[in-house]
Amino acid sequence: MNPVVVLFGQGRVPTDSPLLRADDLGAVRGDGVFETMHVRAGTPWLLDEHLQRMSISAQRLDLGLPPFEDLAELARQACAEWSATEEGALRLVCTRGSESGGNDPTVYATIGRVTEVMKSLRTAGLSVMTLNLGVSVTARESAPWLLGGVKSLSYAMNMACLREAARNGHDDVLWLSSDGYLLEGPTSTLLWRDGDQLLTTPTSTGVLAGTTARFLLDRAGQFGLTADTKLTTVEELAEAEGVWLASSVRGVVEVRAVDGTTRIPSSTTKALQALAGHLVG
Amino acid sequence: MNPVVVLFGQGRVPTDSPLLRADDLGAVRGDGVFETMHVRAGTPWLLDEHLQRMSISAQRLDLGLPPFEDLAELARQACAEWSATEEGALRLVCTRGSESGGNDPTVYATIGRVTEVMKSLRTAGLSVMTLNLGVSVTARESAPWLLGGVKSLSYAMNMACLREAARNGHDDVLWLSSDGYLLEGPTSTLLWRDGDQLLTTPTSTGVLAGTTARFLLDRAGQFGLTADTKLTTVEELAEAEGVWLASSVRGVVEVRAVDGTTRIPSSTTKALQALAGHLVG
Repeated sequence: MNPVVVLFGQGRVPTDSPLLRADDLGAVRGDGVFETMHVRAGTPWLLDEHLQRMSISAQRLDLGLPPFEDLAELARQACAEWSATEEGALRLVCTRGSESGGNDPTVYATIGRVTEVMKSLRTAGLSVMTLNLGVSVTARESAPWLLGGVKSLSYAMNMACLREAARNGHDDVLWLSSDGYLLEGPTSTLLWRDGDQLLTTPTSTGVLAGTTARFLLDRAGQFGLTADTKLTTVEELAEAEGVWLASSVRGVVEVRAVDGTTRIPSSTTKALQALAGHLVG
Repeated sequence: MNPVVVLFGQGRVPTDSPLLRADDLGAVRGDGVFETMHVRAGTPWLLDEHLQRMSISAQRLDLGLPPFEDLAELARQACAEWSATEEGALRLVCTRGSESGGNDPTVYATIGRVTEVMKSLRTAGLSVMTLNLGVSVTARESAPWLLGGVKSLSYAMNMACLREAARNGHDDVLWLSSDGYLLEGPTSTLLWRDGDQLLTTPTSTGVLAGTTARFLLDRAGQFGLTADTKLTTVEELAEAEGVWLASSVRGVVEVRAVDGTTRIPSSTTKALQALAGHLVG
């Protein structure tokens, strides 16, 4: 499938045609919000949850979004152009609009393929490296201007971290706070199992509230687990029964090594992946 | 003057026509670099210095830029379309290009007007508020993936800080490190005078190397001052003879109040502004 692009209020536009003006604040300031969703059987998975998070991000940025139902319609419009038999990565974007062109936000949706590399990681698992994010676990809660928990378009640093991992032969990154706690991945949420608990990092640390992670945590009872949030360290994580990075399009992927120290594969991975419902293997 | 847009390899394009594709990584990831220059008498001020900094930013992001001379030509092309009698704000942008469209970066220049609000601040001075940036003065030097000193397109947090200042009745922001030192403004460099010294924050803290500030520091001898870098605090800054925020388009603007505490106007402001050469008053 060729990528699909649908512009709010206008419908499908050719993928290779330009859509944003040169002074769109999304482009020149990374000023806007986005969400990425998994498209399965022609439908965006967890659409409402993603739209809710987008609305929180937009509020935090003083950005006016179109009504919820219009955004949902935009997502469905894009999906209607996508094959019902191929999984896809749907991106909803809302920027602050053109600097010289008034205050109208630029709103659009794209769908692209899920790469083979991404799919293969669902089976192979991840080798991750830790990288210091330079902020403490308490810094962002009292400083909303730092945009902790906001999914903005300003991901240059996130992408730089992923390149740093690749340069070192790793697949992904786990951010460490300056005071030594694990936070999240640049594009994923940290999950781990400790005894009968399925755990993730508290959002008070400034991590993004993961939608896939939330879906799994809310259903932890199905595996006889209870869900909770906790601050953890690399040392403590080494003792966990299983460690995963959860994200919308890649799904739940097991962490098989942290900073070169390999982990024993978890017996919980298959159940979590089945619940999330991404194609594995 | 209407804004000017010039696309690399293509020439002038209509301002209100779209230029970037929906999946341009500049727009969806804030993944790219930029520079903003002051246009005076139809010429970009400190063009070489800005291109040199852009090249460092691009290197830090593993981003391939067109040759220096081609970028200079692009800037001159844009200036040729601008009135020689009106000051302008020239922006050079280079993004990582379209996600689905190969590895070609998107490179363009825009020129827009210098707003009256911005010009008026040159005379009126600034009321600034301090905001904690959450990182220590040493965190970024040992963590290049945090992109300290890189002028990337990911400015959502910078803009959020400026909105926070406006909400509180201030004109601008001075970022504080988590360990209590003053860093820079979201779009400007901190300068202050202490006795016979003209000072700025060391770039080892992760602040951007300011081009306008550098220009002034290199010529401090003209006022009988010596130039140096130093870590300073709000308390120490209160004792300075003068405090300024320097940026390319707005120029050197005096800080007249910090967190509501007013300052005695500096006797050095006029000389610094005359040297920088922006129109004042």
